[in-house]
Amino acid sequence: MTIQGELIIGHTLAKGTAGEIFGVEAASGQRIEPAFGGATKDDLEKACRLADEAFDTYRETSLEDRARFLEAIADEILALGDELVERCCQESGLPRPRVEGERGRTMGQLRMFAGVLRDGGFLDARVDPAMPERQPLPRPDLRLRNVPLGPVAVFGASNFPLAFSVAGGDTASALAAGCPVVVKAHSAHPGTSELVGRAVLAAAQRCNMPEGVFSLLFDASRQIGQGLVADHRIKAVGFTGSRSGGTALMQIAAARPEPIPVYAEMSSINPVILFPGALAARAEAIAKGFVASLTLGAGQFCTNPGLILAVEGEGLKTFEAAAAKALAETSAAVMLTPGICKSYAGGVAKLAGHAKVETLGRGQEGGELRGQSALFAVSAEDFLSDAHLQEEVFGSSSLVVRCRDEAELAKVIQGLEGQLTAAIHIADSDHAAARKLLPLLEKRAGRILVNGFGTGVEVSHAMVHGGPYPSTADGRSTSVGSKAIERFLRPVSYQDLPDALLPDALKDANPLKLWRRQDGKLVAPNS
Amino acid sequence: MTIQGELIIGHTLAKGTAGEIFGVEAASGQRIEPAFGGATKDDLEKACRLADEAFDTYRETSLEDRARFLEAIADEILALGDELVERCCQESGLPRPRVEGERGRTMGQLRMFAGVLRDGGFLDARVDPAMPERQPLPRPDLRLRNVPLGPVAVFGASNFPLAFSVAGGDTASALAAGCPVVVKAHSAHPGTSELVGRAVLAAAQRCNMPEGVFSLLFDASRQIGQGLVADHRIKAVGFTGSRSGGTALMQIAAARPEPIPVYAEMSSINPVILFPGALAARAEAIAKGFVASLTLGAGQFCTNPGLILAVEGEGLKTFEAAAAKALAETSAAVMLTPGICKSYAGGVAKLAGHAKVETLGRGQEGGELRGQSALFAVSAEDFLSDAHLQEEVFGSSSLVVRCRDEAELAKVIQGLEGQLTAAIHIADSDHAAARKLLPLLEKRAGRILVNGFGTGVEVSHAMVHGGPYPSTADGRSTSVGSKAIERFLRPVSYQDLPDALLPDALKDANPLKLWRRQDGKLVAPNS
Repeated sequence: MTIQGELIIGHTLAKGTAGEIFGVEAASGQRIEPAFGGATKDDLEKACRLADEAFDTYRETSLEDRARFLEAIADEILALGDELVERCCQESGLPRPRVEGERGRTMGQLRMFAGVLRDGGFLDARVDPAMPERQPLPRPDLRLRNVPLGPVAVFGASNFPLAFSVAGGDTASALAAGCPVVVKAHSAHPGTSELVGRAVLAAAQRCNMPEGVFSLLFDASRQIGQGLVADHRIKAVGFTGSRSGGTALMQIAAARPEPIPVYAEMSSINPVILFPGALAARAEAIAKGFVASLTLGAGQFCTNPGLILAVEGEGLKTFEAAAAKALAETSAAVMLTPGICKSYAGGVAKLAGHAKVETLGRGQEGGELRGQSALFAVSAEDFLSDAHLQEEVFGSSSLVVRCRDEAELAKVIQGLEGQLTAAIHIADSDHAAARKLLPLLEKRAGRILVNGFGTGVEVSHAMVHGGPYPSTADGRSTSVGSKAIERFLRPVSYQDLPDALLPDALKDANPLKLWRRQDGKLVAPNS
Repeated sequence: MTIQGELIIGHTLAKGTAGEIFGVEAASGQRIEPAFGGATKDDLEKACRLADEAFDTYRETSLEDRARFLEAIADEILALGDELVERCCQESGLPRPRVEGERGRTMGQLRMFAGVLRDGGFLDARVDPAMPERQPLPRPDLRLRNVPLGPVAVFGASNFPLAFSVAGGDTASALAAGCPVVVKAHSAHPGTSELVGRAVLAAAQRCNMPEGVFSLLFDASRQIGQGLVADHRIKAVGFTGSRSGGTALMQIAAARPEPIPVYAEMSSINPVILFPGALAARAEAIAKGFVASLTLGAGQFCTNPGLILAVEGEGLKTFEAAAAKALAETSAAVMLTPGICKSYAGGVAKLAGHAKVETLGRGQEGGELRGQSALFAVSAEDFLSDAHLQEEVFGSSSLVVRCRDEAELAKVIQGLEGQLTAAIHIADSDHAAARKLLPLLEKRAGRILVNGFGTGVEVSHAMVHGGPYPSTADGRSTSVGSKAIERFLRPVSYQDLPDALLPDALKDANPLKLWRRQDGKLVAPNS
């Protein structure tokens, strides 16, 4: 397959005519041919129309057919072979093992949702049988299932060119839910996007899915992305990116004649709290683990540990020294885009020049387009008096906040914005103190870890990758794991429908073999 | 108990000093003493502060303790005895049997949520056990449960002074979820509100719930209600009322530094579609059922059948004549407030004076403060050309839309806004046509009924009282039934926590005896 720079609108591949974007080799900053044509407003209109038309057919596909479609996408992505891996490495600057791992993860997500479809629990099927004899009024027959919201707009993320992009988590969960998807490709990896888009199209055609179940748009301005969120046929938005980008989409969605949900994952500094017992027992080991997590993937993870909190003392000093030492050995790493690298350097320079902030250590220099890791420290008092110190510096930069005592540490936590993750490092002797802190963390984070770091987001059933605002736009959901399908569903109740008119999920004979709630109690499919 | 006109802020009862509101006897328009003092900004501040403080304790209460609290509220409401029923009848103009029924429903809701708490399924407890041997990387132990969002603002509704008001569905589901509640009482029934508020306070004190788990504010302006939604400690809003009121709250919530979810139930005209077979078989019986539903409670239900759709023909003519005849026999009924009655009369006058609208029939006149039911008809063509004809006229007014054929009927449905309910009346011969229409209805309504009307909303597990915008602000949820608890929850994931630090719901020994998902599969509590 050769990259053509083409939009995918339903079954049609064609070059957009509204400006051009180019792939850029992350390591060199050089343009890669060919150009990708930006979508016009007509292209957007057509993609939305086709998605809306496809919805009526796609939502009625069987769970098994949809599962096979998701599996076919995974297969087609794998069939892209080395061309995909090489292009993705080139555009993102990420090393080959990471890209191969991310491809596996992307396929794993699609297959996990195939399993979610076959399980059917996401339908939340419920049956409250009629009670014709009830006094003073009979009770009608009531049944409930979840149905898909409608066409979903997905914005590709720069930092996961496969797993959070064209066929990433949002696309997989939306398609699983029964929602057609219109993707706005991220300009940082257009070639990767086109290849994956072609794989999705091939799978859709092979599985006889309706035209419009998937479209892929490139945007040379911001008009297409914004127009997509504003389009009346789009019923939900999935986004991973910056806070300014996410809040802009939230505002567009809220201002529509029909407001729609926006699931934007935006920013998080992922506090890590080091307890005294843990520091006394293994400050150096924690420091090494921390630096490994901080510098993984050039620090370009949403769950990157950007904030370390601890009470001052020997333990923290040992940690700081060990972390600075480990950091000094880290190589500078190519960042995703020249813009991201410049923004990272700016954030680091601001911290380094901050009157109250001490530079604890830096990684090795690497010249232009490479991020040099950085570790800073500040007193809790100064941290509390400057809200800017809470701002995410996207990349391998972190800030140690030195607290006088437990009370001040709690105060720092209470002042934190919503986070994707919060980690605590503890020894047995820290349990009592940790127990006191856990409720504070639970209010502010979507995932709480013990003796680990938030990087490495498992794709499973008990994962939450989401958290209170501003880490995400809507802390009621997750973008990773099987529970992500719930974002794109709404419940519908059916009253007194003849069995023949009920959806299969709710028919008396339970042909889909679902677990269902009958009068609120779970009932197994064969009982 | 005597009504004092007092605010309830935590454990303190005191008269507000920011203006006065009075209860009004609905049937006469006469003021009822005493005055209710409006809350000041300081009162609001105190209620929000106490709710926020109470949250830390209340969220940690056991499921059983919370269940008992809800049951105690039900008991305390019943213990108010006749004083509550009489005051409620007086303020709302609703007849005694309706008020007694609504009281039973209110208590039933509270008790249903006690059952939901004891079942524990709403926690969605999940366990993905560690896989220390997995290659290339071990899998951590991951567990998930839902936690409460935080303090919730509840706005009492005029049309359900008990079941959607101070201790109504939103309060019951929020308290069940573990969220403290601050209620803004509806000015249409302040005495009823105070009595019920005192019952909630008595239950909270009897059950040793933390101060601030419940507060009740009266608002003589709109500042307190708006300030409540804007307060940073409030994490979600429940509202039932007008579209203008609901959208105003949505805008305030979206403009906060931390936007929060608003669950506003706003307006719905609840289309009823009469199929040819059903009309041929029983047009008169359907007409009688329709008029009974239309005029129930003076038509003041969110699910009132405000729109009838059918293909022209003998059957529809028979229906119209029978409905007009039945309507002529209906008495005018006292409406909830003089304002609502005036607004109803205005809406009816507008339809009656509309050049394209035919008046099919009116109910009996009843003088001031009483709503006189009304039935109108219009051609589908004219309906489609005037969007105002879709606006809800709150009260017992309905509009028949005469369609030339099935295709035009489908076109009318496609032009409808989101609805709480949609009903179809069918005979066996209509199944094929109904099957074609069901997907259209499912996209536009939260509940679909066959051979019935939407009034009479069962409180059960399979009920959805919610629907696409603008029937509600957020069609992903319901305000009635056990699924309503989901509005006030968010998921949290716990990674590698020692058993001793895990919440009970997720401990290895499963002390709460919950059904849990292990690696995505449901596992019974004792297996």
